[in-house]
Amino acid sequence: MEGLDFIFAPKSIALVGASSTKGKVGHDIFANVIFGGYQGTIYPVNPKAQAIMGVKCYPSLLSIPDPVDLAMVILPPKLALQAAHDCVKKGVKGMVIISAGFKEVGGEGLEIENQIKAVCKEAGIRIVGPNCLGVINPASDVSLNASFSSRMPNSGNISFISQSGALCTAVLDFAADRGFGFSKFISIGNKADVDELDLLKYYHADPKTHVIMIYMEELTRRGKEFIDVAKNITSGENPTPILVIKSGSSVAGAAAAASHTGSLAGSDAAYNAIFSEGGIIRCESVNQLFDFALAFSARKIPTGNRIAIITNAGGPGIIATDMTEHSGLKLAKFSEETVEELKRHLPPTANFHNPVDVIGDAARDRYENALATVISDSNVDGVLIILTPQSMTDAIGTAQAIVQIFKTTQKPIACAFMGVVDVSEGVKILNKNHVPVYDFPENAASALGALNTANRWLNRKRLPDYKTEFDVERARTMIQDFIDRDFLVLGEVEGAELLKCYGFKTLEMKIATSGEEAAGFAEAIGFPVVMKIVSPDILHKSDAKGVKVGIRDRKEAENAFAEIIDNAKAYKESAVIKGVLIQKMASPGDEVILGMNRDIMFGPMVMFGLGGIFVELFKDVIFRIAPFGRNVARRMIKSIKAYPLLTGFRGKPVADIEIIERNLVALSQMVDNHPEIKELDINPLLVHKKGEGATVADVIITLNKKKV
Amino acid sequence: MEGLDFIFAPKSIALVGASSTKGKVGHDIFANVIFGGYQGTIYPVNPKAQAIMGVKCYPSLLSIPDPVDLAMVILPPKLALQAAHDCVKKGVKGMVIISAGFKEVGGEGLEIENQIKAVCKEAGIRIVGPNCLGVINPASDVSLNASFSSRMPNSGNISFISQSGALCTAVLDFAADRGFGFSKFISIGNKADVDELDLLKYYHADPKTHVIMIYMEELTRRGKEFIDVAKNITSGENPTPILVIKSGSSVAGAAAAASHTGSLAGSDAAYNAIFSEGGIIRCESVNQLFDFALAFSARKIPTGNRIAIITNAGGPGIIATDMTEHSGLKLAKFSEETVEELKRHLPPTANFHNPVDVIGDAARDRYENALATVISDSNVDGVLIILTPQSMTDAIGTAQAIVQIFKTTQKPIACAFMGVVDVSEGVKILNKNHVPVYDFPENAASALGALNTANRWLNRKRLPDYKTEFDVERARTMIQDFIDRDFLVLGEVEGAELLKCYGFKTLEMKIATSGEEAAGFAEAIGFPVVMKIVSPDILHKSDAKGVKVGIRDRKEAENAFAEIIDNAKAYKESAVIKGVLIQKMASPGDEVILGMNRDIMFGPMVMFGLGGIFVELFKDVIFRIAPFGRNVARRMIKSIKAYPLLTGFRGKPVADIEIIERNLVALSQMVDNHPEIKELDINPLLVHKKGEGATVADVIITLNKKKV
Repeated sequence: MEGLDFIFAPKSIALVGASSTKGKVGHDIFANVIFGGYQGTIYPVNPKAQAIMGVKCYPSLLSIPDPVDLAMVILPPKLALQAAHDCVKKGVKGMVIISAGFKEVGGEGLEIENQIKAVCKEAGIRIVGPNCLGVINPASDVSLNASFSSRMPNSGNISFISQSGALCTAVLDFAADRGFGFSKFISIGNKADVDELDLLKYYHADPKTHVIMIYMEELTRRGKEFIDVAKNITSGENPTPILVIKSGSSVAGAAAAASHTGSLAGSDAAYNAIFSEGGIIRCESVNQLFDFALAFSARKIPTGNRIAIITNAGGPGIIATDMTEHSGLKLAKFSEETVEELKRHLPPTANFHNPVDVIGDAARDRYENALATVISDSNVDGVLIILTPQSMTDAIGTAQAIVQIFKTTQKPIACAFMGVVDVSEGVKILNKNHVPVYDFPENAASALGALNTANRWLNRKRLPDYKTEFDVERARTMIQDFIDRDFLVLGEVEGAELLKCYGFKTLEMKIATSGEEAAGFAEAIGFPVVMKIVSPDILHKSDAKGVKVGIRDRKEAENAFAEIIDNAKAYKESAVIKGVLIQKMASPGDEVILGMNRDIMFGPMVMFGLGGIFVELFKDVIFRIAPFGRNVARRMIKSIKAYPLLTGFRGKPVADIEIIERNLVALSQMVDNHPEIKELDINPLLVHKKGEGATVADVIITLNKKKV
Repeated sequence: MEGLDFIFAPKSIALVGASSTKGKVGHDIFANVIFGGYQGTIYPVNPKAQAIMGVKCYPSLLSIPDPVDLAMVILPPKLALQAAHDCVKKGVKGMVIISAGFKEVGGEGLEIENQIKAVCKEAGIRIVGPNCLGVINPASDVSLNASFSSRMPNSGNISFISQSGALCTAVLDFAADRGFGFSKFISIGNKADVDELDLLKYYHADPKTHVIMIYMEELTRRGKEFIDVAKNITSGENPTPILVIKSGSSVAGAAAAASHTGSLAGSDAAYNAIFSEGGIIRCESVNQLFDFALAFSARKIPTGNRIAIITNAGGPGIIATDMTEHSGLKLAKFSEETVEELKRHLPPTANFHNPVDVIGDAARDRYENALATVISDSNVDGVLIILTPQSMTDAIGTAQAIVQIFKTTQKPIACAFMGVVDVSEGVKILNKNHVPVYDFPENAASALGALNTANRWLNRKRLPDYKTEFDVERARTMIQDFIDRDFLVLGEVEGAELLKCYGFKTLEMKIATSGEEAAGFAEAIGFPVVMKIVSPDILHKSDAKGVKVGIRDRKEAENAFAEIIDNAKAYKESAVIKGVLIQKMASPGDEVILGMNRDIMFGPMVMFGLGGIFVELFKDVIFRIAPFGRNVARRMIKSIKAYPLLTGFRGKPVADIEIIERNLVALSQMVDNHPEIKELDINPLLVHKKGEGATVADVIITLNKKKV
C-alpha cells in the first residue's frame, strides 16, 4: 500500500467502540460505513455486544480473526490508549481517533495523546485525529464513508482537508446541494500525527485528485516546509491547485510590537505570506471556495487574461464586465475576422464586439455560433457565457452546445445560468459534463479570475538568484558584543554598522564631542551634513530641537553643535549626552521601508512597503517568510500599491529597483542567520535613481538576549 | 385609488395583444395572470381571437363593456401608439407596455415612444415600460402576476424595482429557492414615465413594504432629487432601508479629464456619492442583496455595533469573529453577571466569554439559555448564532427557542445554520418566523454589519449648518470677464482671486516685472517669499527652473528675479514672459486636495482627499454631489483613510478640520452658483494647526465658454 492508502482505502476496518445505540457516534459511524456500501470488511469491536446492526461484534481488536488495516477508535482517552497498544499487537497500519477529550482539553487528555503518539510512532502506525470527523472516499472500488455524516458525496476530482470537524458536515451538505463530487475527504482534528503536509503530498500523488481544498484554523508547525511542499504541488510537476479558507485575525503576535514592522505584522500577514509563496489561493468564504473549486475541477487554465463574454441580456453583461475587471481580467478585443463571423450568425441588432449580446430572443444556435467563433479567436483566453431565461431561451440546447465546444477546447469556459427553476435542466447538463456553471455572472467572473491567478503563478518569471557574499562573521561578532554589553536597541550608528556587513549602503557618520571636532568631522565627511543629538534619553530628537540639516561650512557646524547641546539640555536637563552625530546629507530618493518581525509560529518575516508616515495609514506593505531569493523579492516590490512611484510616476525618475531586491534578499538572509535580531525597521531606505543604489537613512534594530 | 395603485392593484386589466399561441408573450402573460389567481377581472384583447384559454376575447380596448384600470400592451410600436389613443378614450389610468422596439432601438421606435408619452401625459395616464417584464403583487387580495415569470412569489415585506427585465426571472427563482416573500415587484424598462423615484415614493408609502431592493443599470435623470427622496425614505419618518445593486464602471465621463479630480471621477464615484448621501446601501452581488434584505426584513436595527456570538463549534466561531470585525462590528464585552449566568447553564468546558462556545454536544437548552442571557446584557447590541450539525444537535428545538426570544427582543439576531440537509427543518422554522438565517457565518456577520450601517446612518450627527456669506456678484463678474477675454484656464493668481470671493484664504502675491519691483513687492508682502515665473507658455515651472523658495531679503529677491527670467528664456526662447510672481511663503500644514468635476448626468461633484503625489496612487478620495452642507462635508473628511493624519497622528498637531468643512461647503456652493466653472483643483490646500485655518497653496480652474 502506498502512502496513506490504508487510511483512505483500507481493505479492512475495525471500529473499536462500536455501539448498538442509535444516535451514539459509535453506532452512527458504523451505520454510515455499512449504508455507504464499503467494499472492504468492517469489524465492529465492543466487549458488551453480540452483534451491531446484525453484524457480528468482536470483544476486542485482538479477537478479530483476520488482518486489520485501519482501526477507527471511538473511546475515551484511557481506553483509546489501550486500543493503541492492541493496534501494535494486531499489526494495524493506521488509526483514526474520532473521540475528543485529548490535547484540546489539556491535562490528562494531552498526556494520553502524547502517550498514544509515542506508542504508534514506535510501531510505525499513522494516526488521524483525535477529535475529528473521519474519512470519506466515494470512489466506487472503495466507497468508504467512515464519518459522522450520513451522506456519501458523489465521486469527483476534488479532495478536501478540514481542520474543523464541525464544518465538514456543512460542507458535505452544501456540496451535495451544488452537485459537487469529491475524491477524498478527511477531517484532521488535533493532528497528533497526520497533518496538512502529509495529506497535501498524498493528494498530490493521487491521480484522482485534481483540486485540493483546505479549511484551515492554524498551521501548528513546519511553516517553511509547508511553503516548499505547496509550491511544488501548485507549480512543480503535475501542478494541482490548492484552495484554502482560513479564519484569521488572531492578533496575539502583533500585540506588543515596538517597530512599524511589528505593528503591521500579525498572524494573518504570515498566513498571506505562506499562501502566496506556496501558490495557494485564499478564498474569502465557503461559497467562494466552491465557486473556485468548480472552475479548477474543469482543468483548463488560461494562458492569458483576455476574456470574451457572451450574453442574452445587457444588465448581467455589464455586471460581468465590471467583475471581470475587478478580478484582474480584461475584455478581449476580437479580431476583424471574428467580428465578421459574428455578423454572419447574429441578428443586426446584436453586439458583435465584446461583450457579445446575442439578444433576448436567442435560442441555442446563436449561443453555439457565437461561442464557436469567439473561442477560436487567438485574442481570447477564456469565455464567460451568460444565459437569462427569456421566452425563446433554450437552456437545455444551449447547455448541450456549450458542452460540445467545452470538450474540444483548452480554454476555460464559465457559465452563469441565471434563475434556479427555468434553467435547471440546462444546469444539470453542464454539471454532469464538468462545465463550471454559476447562478450569477459575478461568481463566474471571479472564478475565471482565480484561474488566471493560477496562470500567472504557473508562468511567473523565475530569474537566477543573485550571488551574495556577506560578512556574516563580523555581524555575528558585533551582535554578540552588543548582547554581552546589554546594548539591545541599536540606533542609526550601530544599526548602520551591522547593515554594512550585509552590503547595505549607509551614510558616513561620526560622533563629535566638541564644536571643533564637529567642524573637523563635517569637513572630512564633506559638506553639507546633518547633525543630530546622541543621547539614550532623547528618543524623539526633533522634539528636542536636536536635529540640524543642511550644514554648509565649519562655522555653521560649530554653531550647530553648541545649539544642539543647549537645546538638548533645555529639553531634558538630566539627559546623558554622548555627543552630536555628524552625518553626510543623503542624496534624494524615494522613501521605502524594509523591516523584520518574528512570528511566533513561522519565524522571521521580512516586510517591504512605502516609507514615511503613510506606511501605517495605508498599510501598503507586504510580508514574506525569510529567507527568500530574488524572485520573491521582486514580486514583493511589485505587489505594493505604491509600486508605480518607483517606475517613473508623473515624470519622476525611475528608481533603482534592483538594489531594493538585493537589499531585501540580504535582509532576509541576515535575519535568518542571526536569530538574536528580534525586530528591525529600516525606515526610510532612500532609493535613488536607477543605477545609483539606495541609502539607509535611518534604522532601528532590537536584539534578544537569547536566541529565539 | 392612491398613487400607483392602479398599476399594482388594478380592479381590471385589459391585455392588449393577448395571444392564443403558447410560448408567445401575449399568451404566457395572460396565462400567468389567470394561474396566479388574480382577484380582479382581466379582459384579453385581440381582434382575431374569439377566446383565449377559454376567456372571452374583445376585438379592441373600446369594445370592453366595463371600466378598465390598467392596460397591458404587447404590441409592436405603431399598434402600441394606437392602443394609447384607445386608452385615452377608454379612460384607462395606467399602461404597462411590455414590448420592446422603442427608445432602445432609436429611430422610429424612439419617436413613437415620445408620441405615446405625449398622448398619455395629456390624458394623465401613467406608463410603465416599454421594454419591461411586468408587475407582480402577491398580496392575497390582489394576487397579480402580470409578468413573464410563471412563478408567483410568496407574499412578504420586500419590494423590488428592476431596471433589467432579464434579471427579474432569475431573481424570482433565486428568491423562491431561498424562501423570500415579496410585497411588490416591478420591471421598469425604458422608464418612459414611471421611474425609480416614483416607485420609491410609492413603496415608502406602502404599509406592506419594509425593505426596498433596486437593481439599477443607470439613473437617467433627477440625481439630486433622487438623493433627497432617498434620504427621506431611509432616515425620515417611517424609515425604510433601500438596498441597491448597481453595475458600474461606465467610464465615459472620466475619459478626457485634465485635472486630478477629473481623472479620479467617473460615474461610479457619482453613484457612490448618490447612494451615500441618500443612505442607500450598495450590495456587491445578488447574493449579498438577498442576504441583507433578509436581515432588514426582520425590522430590528441595532443601536450599536457590539455583537455576541454563540456557537457550538470553534472554527465557524473564529470565522464569525473575523467577519464581524471586517463588517464594522465588534465583539461585545459581557458584564460579570452575564458571565456568571452563562456559567450556571453551560458545562465547565464551555467558553463563557464572547464568542460563547456551547460545545459540540449542545442541544436546545444550552442555546436557549445562552441566547436569553447574552441578549439581555446591555453591552450587547445584537447576536449571531452558529449551529453546526453534530450528533446531539437539535436544529428544530434550537430554532424554536430562537424564535421565542426573537419575538420579544428589539435586538437583531442572525443565524448561521450550517449544512443544507441536517438542519433544513430548523431553517424552515426560522424562515417562517422571519428570523434571518444563512448558510455560513460570514454571510450572517456581513448582514449584521449592514444593519449597523443603517444604525449609523439613522443616528448620524446632524449639526446646524454654517452661516455663509459669499461675494457671489464679484465672482460672477470676474468669471464673465475671463470668459469675455477667452481666458479659460485660471492659474494661481486669478484662481486665488476667485476663491477669495468664497472665503478661501490665499497667499498674498504680486507680479513683478523688474528686479527692483520684485524686491519692493517682497518687502511689502514680508519675507520670506517664493518667486515663480509667470508665462502662459511655461506650465511646468519647476522644470524650467522657474521657482525659487525661501527668499529672505531684497538682495536675494533681485538676484532671484534675474535668474528666473534667464532660466525661463533658456528653457523656451519663444516664451511670452509676463513677469515673476512674488508670493508669501505658506506656513506649514497638511496637504489636502479639494476639487470639482462635472458629471454628465449629475452635475458638479466635489472631491476631497489627501493631497500630493499620493492622491492618484491610493485614490483615497471621496466625491459628493454639490451643493451640500456642513454635515456632508464633515462625513466626507472623516471617510478618507488618511483622516487620522488630521487628528494628531504620531504626535503631529491636530489640523484645523473645521476650516476644511467650511471650505468644502463654500466650494460646493461656488460650483453650484457658477456653472461656467468646468473643473477645479485646489492642490494642495495647506491645513494648519487647529484654529489657524488653511491656505490655498495652488489652484487651477477651467472655465467653459458657455454655461453647461
